[in-house]
Amino acid sequence: MTVLVTGGSGLVGINLVERLLSQGNDVVSLSATPMPSWAERAFASLAGRLHMYTGDVRNLLDWDAVAKRHDIGSIVHCAAITPKEQREQRDFHRIVEVNVLGTVQALDAARRWHVRRFIYCSSGAVYGANAFPVGEIAEAVCPRPQTLYAVTKHAGEGAALRYGELWNLDVVVARLGTVFGRWEHDTGVRDMLSAPMQTAAIAESGGLAVLPREGLRDWIYGPDVARALVALLEVPKPKWEVYNVGPGAVWSMVDWCELLRSRFPEFSYRVAQDESTANVDFHAPRDRSPLCIARIREDLGFQPEYGLQRAFDDFIDWRRSTLETSLV
Amino acid sequence: MTVLVTGGSGLVGINLVERLLSQGNDVVSLSATPMPSWAERAFASLAGRLHMYTGDVRNLLDWDAVAKRHDIGSIVHCAAITPKEQREQRDFHRIVEVNVLGTVQALDAARRWHVRRFIYCSSGAVYGANAFPVGEIAEAVCPRPQTLYAVTKHAGEGAALRYGELWNLDVVVARLGTVFGRWEHDTGVRDMLSAPMQTAAIAESGGLAVLPREGLRDWIYGPDVARALVALLEVPKPKWEVYNVGPGAVWSMVDWCELLRSRFPEFSYRVAQDESTANVDFHAPRDRSPLCIARIREDLGFQPEYGLQRAFDDFIDWRRSTLETSLV
Repeated sequence: MTVLVTGGSGLVGINLVERLLSQGNDVVSLSATPMPSWAERAFASLAGRLHMYTGDVRNLLDWDAVAKRHDIGSIVHCAAITPKEQREQRDFHRIVEVNVLGTVQALDAARRWHVRRFIYCSSGAVYGANAFPVGEIAEAVCPRPQTLYAVTKHAGEGAALRYGELWNLDVVVARLGTVFGRWEHDTGVRDMLSAPMQTAAIAESGGLAVLPREGLRDWIYGPDVARALVALLEVPKPKWEVYNVGPGAVWSMVDWCELLRSRFPEFSYRVAQDESTANVDFHAPRDRSPLCIARIREDLGFQPEYGLQRAFDDFIDWRRSTLETSLV
Repeated sequence: MTVLVTGGSGLVGINLVERLLSQGNDVVSLSATPMPSWAERAFASLAGRLHMYTGDVRNLLDWDAVAKRHDIGSIVHCAAITPKEQREQRDFHRIVEVNVLGTVQALDAARRWHVRRFIYCSSGAVYGANAFPVGEIAEAVCPRPQTLYAVTKHAGEGAALRYGELWNLDVVVARLGTVFGRWEHDTGVRDMLSAPMQTAAIAESGGLAVLPREGLRDWIYGPDVARALVALLEVPKPKWEVYNVGPGAVWSMVDWCELLRSRFPEFSYRVAQDESTANVDFHAPRDRSPLCIARIREDLGFQPEYGLQRAFDDFIDWRRSTLETSLV
């Protein structure tokens, strides 16, 4: 099956592309930025074939360019601008265009191409103001989007589900937790290099990381996100329209920095007394509660594979091998 | 103060325009369709001056045309496509553009023009699947938009409130109930002539109205909506970001048809045994619960003035005088 991954060079997309290729699927990536050459080289040895298109999801012609050469079986729509506040201010209109109208273009393509399933990558950010209950956030919690990113992601969910209803298109929404992982790089559309990535870079150069707070969250590793999305692609009949995708466990950036310190003796870290003195950005003023993943566990048998230690080992190994062969 | 009303020729907008003019405000209307000539004539005798622009809220040039000639003090953004299911299917992309990106253009204009307040006309439709509790729907009820209209209205709310936060713009959201009333006419962007309007037209020609069901709802009369919006414009510091706007009472289309029957002896009506045989369209498969208006009552002292009988008398008088002088 050929899978179209939009935003295939972004953090979620690239992990998904790797997973799909390694399982022997042909993959088409439609993305605003090209695949980094070091990723392209690494992917060349995998079983499936990768076809890359640089384009704009808002632009019908870019979708047509894909359709001319490929018979797309499913679409996973990851393409989005993930802005920080300054960019929300600066690029408000464009963020709405890319994240909402880009999704409508993706849905139109899915309908025209009669794809088997359309997966919409949403975000735990949609829970917004309601993301701080005691315990875990289940899918039934009322979304209260606050940032423009969250507003557009929630609008994308609603548009996708309504589109599915109107056109009998099989649509599934995945609300992703805080992703970090392999292949992470600055694409220009994601303002947010992950905190594990930021601290790893400081550790490698023997510096001091000043954390804004402890940072206890359900950090989820890219390969686990990719496995969850593939599971959502492959399940014959998903029972639900919306699934949380998280690691089902929490650890803190202090835990992460402890592992970094044992690996990089020159590295040190502390938690800032005053948040404004931090040199690591968690991209949120508070740490939201972990996503409840009972639904995807029970309906799909999905089980995350990367706990803190395993994710750390894999990530640091990936950093080393990538840094050796190229500039990240 | 000059108030810009977008969608000023639509059902909500036109009632608001009348109210503002009668209070001596200058009003600028930016609307996709021109004001009906019979409304224009009626408004000419009011205290304020009306300036009409036919334009597209998505188009920056149309906003600039307004800015060249007017110093806008406040904006009430009513412009939207109100589609039925067939149009949601046919015009999905355009509905998202007009209802969401049109709102972003309106917000950009509000910021550039330093307006005092921006009122976003949303809809009780945003409560969607959660609009059927026992009792009334308060603003704290979780929105669960289902139609594309509701998805775009909810996205517009979120975008407007976030924009206000980013740019320190005074934004208030009004969630309107099921509006009917004076000046109602087919603009081409609202698929839904109100049920009171449909039945009145049948009554005037002495026909038979077949209702799909009893139709017990919080039907709100246009002039009451207009008064609520003006109250939201005028209150110095609204306590809340979001206000329901409803009549605070329910009556049914059977009640309405009884009044029609006493006024038009040739008229008859019945409730259909089989909904599909109805010739009156309620535009929804179920009647949602009434909006709770405790918030706007308590914070603004707003009190609806039109109960069933008064709205009926006013509406039928308006129909008669308008039909006498022109073709509605």
